[in-house]
Amino acid sequence: MKQYQDTIIALATPAGSGAIGVIRLSGPDAIDIVNRFFQSKFHQKDLRNVPTHTVHLGYIKDDGQILDEVLVSIFKNPQSYTGENVVEISVHGSPYIQQQILQLFLKNGVRHAQAGEFTLRAFLNGKMDLAQAEAVADLIASDSETSHRLALQQMRGGFSSEIKKLRDELIHFASLMELELDFAEEDVEFADRQQFKDLVQRIKQTLKHLVDSFATGNVLKEGVPVAIIGEPNVGKSTLLNALLNEERAIVSDIAGTTRDVIEDELVLNGIRFRFIDTAGIREAQDQIEKIGIRKTYEKIKEAKVVVFLIDACALSQKSSCHEPHHQKVLQEFETEIQNITRKYPNKKILIVVNKVDKTNRKDYQIDTRKYPVIEISAKHKTGLDRLNNELVSLVNKGALDQNQVVVSNARHYQALNDALQSIIQVENGLNTDLSGDLLSIDIRAALHSLGEITGDITTDNLLDNIFRNFCIGK
Amino acid sequence: MKQYQDTIIALATPAGSGAIGVIRLSGPDAIDIVNRFFQSKFHQKDLRNVPTHTVHLGYIKDDGQILDEVLVSIFKNPQSYTGENVVEISVHGSPYIQQQILQLFLKNGVRHAQAGEFTLRAFLNGKMDLAQAEAVADLIASDSETSHRLALQQMRGGFSSEIKKLRDELIHFASLMELELDFAEEDVEFADRQQFKDLVQRIKQTLKHLVDSFATGNVLKEGVPVAIIGEPNVGKSTLLNALLNEERAIVSDIAGTTRDVIEDELVLNGIRFRFIDTAGIREAQDQIEKIGIRKTYEKIKEAKVVVFLIDACALSQKSSCHEPHHQKVLQEFETEIQNITRKYPNKKILIVVNKVDKTNRKDYQIDTRKYPVIEISAKHKTGLDRLNNELVSLVNKGALDQNQVVVSNARHYQALNDALQSIIQVENGLNTDLSGDLLSIDIRAALHSLGEITGDITTDNLLDNIFRNFCIGK
Repeated sequence: MKQYQDTIIALATPAGSGAIGVIRLSGPDAIDIVNRFFQSKFHQKDLRNVPTHTVHLGYIKDDGQILDEVLVSIFKNPQSYTGENVVEISVHGSPYIQQQILQLFLKNGVRHAQAGEFTLRAFLNGKMDLAQAEAVADLIASDSETSHRLALQQMRGGFSSEIKKLRDELIHFASLMELELDFAEEDVEFADRQQFKDLVQRIKQTLKHLVDSFATGNVLKEGVPVAIIGEPNVGKSTLLNALLNEERAIVSDIAGTTRDVIEDELVLNGIRFRFIDTAGIREAQDQIEKIGIRKTYEKIKEAKVVVFLIDACALSQKSSCHEPHHQKVLQEFETEIQNITRKYPNKKILIVVNKVDKTNRKDYQIDTRKYPVIEISAKHKTGLDRLNNELVSLVNKGALDQNQVVVSNARHYQALNDALQSIIQVENGLNTDLSGDLLSIDIRAALHSLGEITGDITTDNLLDNIFRNFCIGK
Repeated sequence: MKQYQDTIIALATPAGSGAIGVIRLSGPDAIDIVNRFFQSKFHQKDLRNVPTHTVHLGYIKDDGQILDEVLVSIFKNPQSYTGENVVEISVHGSPYIQQQILQLFLKNGVRHAQAGEFTLRAFLNGKMDLAQAEAVADLIASDSETSHRLALQQMRGGFSSEIKKLRDELIHFASLMELELDFAEEDVEFADRQQFKDLVQRIKQTLKHLVDSFATGNVLKEGVPVAIIGEPNVGKSTLLNALLNEERAIVSDIAGTTRDVIEDELVLNGIRFRFIDTAGIREAQDQIEKIGIRKTYEKIKEAKVVVFLIDACALSQKSSCHEPHHQKVLQEFETEIQNITRKYPNKKILIVVNKVDKTNRKDYQIDTRKYPVIEISAKHKTGLDRLNNELVSLVNKGALDQNQVVVSNARHYQALNDALQSIIQVENGLNTDLSGDLLSIDIRAALHSLGEITGDITTDNLLDNIFRNFCIGK
């Protein structure tokens, strides 16, 4: 357990004006140093002598000058977020005041925290494992029900406690194997091969399950990439706006919170959908060439769900549809759909017929048994509910609903995959009675990969990579 | 003391992503209602039974689902900001999570707070007087040393305790006067006229002093309006940028805080300077006509300080100055300065000679005894320190340095002025032996005006006007 000698400080709340802001200090001197500049409002008080988890009203004073009236919360080592002495100063929400108070402490021996340094200390002090620490950043970034639940699950231990347990068992066998090597001439077997095989089997199953869950987990965390494709003037831009505007109206219902609106993302039933290359859609539509060109295929390649938009008018024989020159036989569309399906067999395709308000159902013919179509009018916002439902139903969040553990972090996925490969090697070795020293190499590789998830094995480089993505103050 | 029946909630920290956010509840049910959705992390805990000013780690759960891991701070009536039960929930700084937790409580009988409602309750529950409540908003808005100190001074009682004391004495005499009226036929004098005169004299002096302080207070709070004037191409825009950029570089030194940069404001020695109509300066300079036109005079009228910029080249005989067609005799400038001084005798004028790098001092002549000039090169940023010092020295913040009370709130100024006029009437009445019933009218008017400052007399309209300018959550 590493003990830091220095005390760090940062603004923990978003920058800007608000009712209050919170400045957080952590380190051995945190309480001492705040105590030097704190004066209780009502009676003499020494913050060094108050119980942990208590709040105190008073002033922060610099050289006799009051900087602000504040509430100070005291958390004593080890009962704090970082495991060190922590002080949270709740100040008035003026950027000027926050700056003054930060400067006061920076002048007096406190160092400004680096990105994620509070959480890094929590990890290094054993308050959480590495996967839990990473979940803190995910939690703050979470902006949908599923990304939120994934992060919470991981923060509460998730699969890392299970990984830790399996790793400990593997370490036990590894040490027995190493022991065998020391007594190599005597040809003894300390490690029961059958028990070992069982353990390897269990580890393999667990890892396989976790590795497989990443396909779902990643999509739920990062959002489901959706491509809207179709001919010029089919209404791609109108559809996109119709989908997005509806959501924004809901979001803005709740007073007191604002949401950084991320262009062209839609949250449906807690699942985030990301629309690909909508810049292209929003540009002059005549720049987009007919379906079939390279660009459209690139879009489809990136997507998990493809919304194939067809103009009801283009299929219609009726002259009341305004653009007869767009007329196209059904077969052309069918060919295009078949081309896409052949080229990208794993994409989910939703066939959406737009502008149904302009023509009659009987005027255009699509074999709905072959291609279940969704009929909409993007302009009049009809049929959008069904489209939304279809989008949601394409994503399997069943695993999450049953509180199963899902891997959503690309680093964990990589490490789990590496561990799985090593474990399969170990399994093969065991089955072919590979010599103990060769077996040990694969076991050590597996232990290494598993240790990287929980943080039992770390390098400065790894920690840097993880924590530099945190915000300052966390 | 008014007791509210409902419990309110709001996000108290700025919206957006950060390490943490704080959600605040106030009202009789605040603790009960949070307790229903809170689960301690380590052992069973009932928030209703914990001591005030304590902090508790746990989960906020909705229907078994964890919404977040939080720290909950408990403040029990009356030991809280509002005087009611107050709970502060420190949550992870994700807008999504904050929204979820707000919604949970809004669904369960808590109402969303209106702007300033926490502080309004603090006022109505007698935790602070009205002038102190107003200072809370000023404190949050403060963005310079002086505006910050003005707000703190006012929040800590400022002049309102003195006003309250004088008002109480005046009430005493007023009631004696009213008593005299009841016994009008008997011609008795309950109120000692000499003591009364002394009191009125004291009140008048205090009010006069406060009313006079507003000239300084308002400028320190709102910023000193500065007009930069001069001929086209004299370098107004370059000077403005040079002054502003220097400050911004300082501000951005401090990591972890950002400042909403307000265009064209400059803080020097804690005093804010506002540059007037810099939009005009930043526009094509040839649109700005020669000095002397109506527009320039309007700018001067608004300003407290006028920076009169002169081109050293224009005064120079030297051909190396690039624009000889701009040449102008010194006398023309002198005439302009005299015109301004005559028209606006109270403006402070700084004469600044720009582009001194292009010519020699001996090549242009200004009588520096008559007009103390500051020589600068805005382009090369020389001489700016002296200009800054001169700007600061023009503003008297002496009063503030000596911790004297300064009125900076326009509403208080108005009420103090009204009270002063009424008190002068009372004084005149006393000196001319005005009848008691007429005297009483003026006394009541003075009491009313004084009561409006402290909040002893309020109307819904007055409170609305004050608190609607607060942010939500304060």
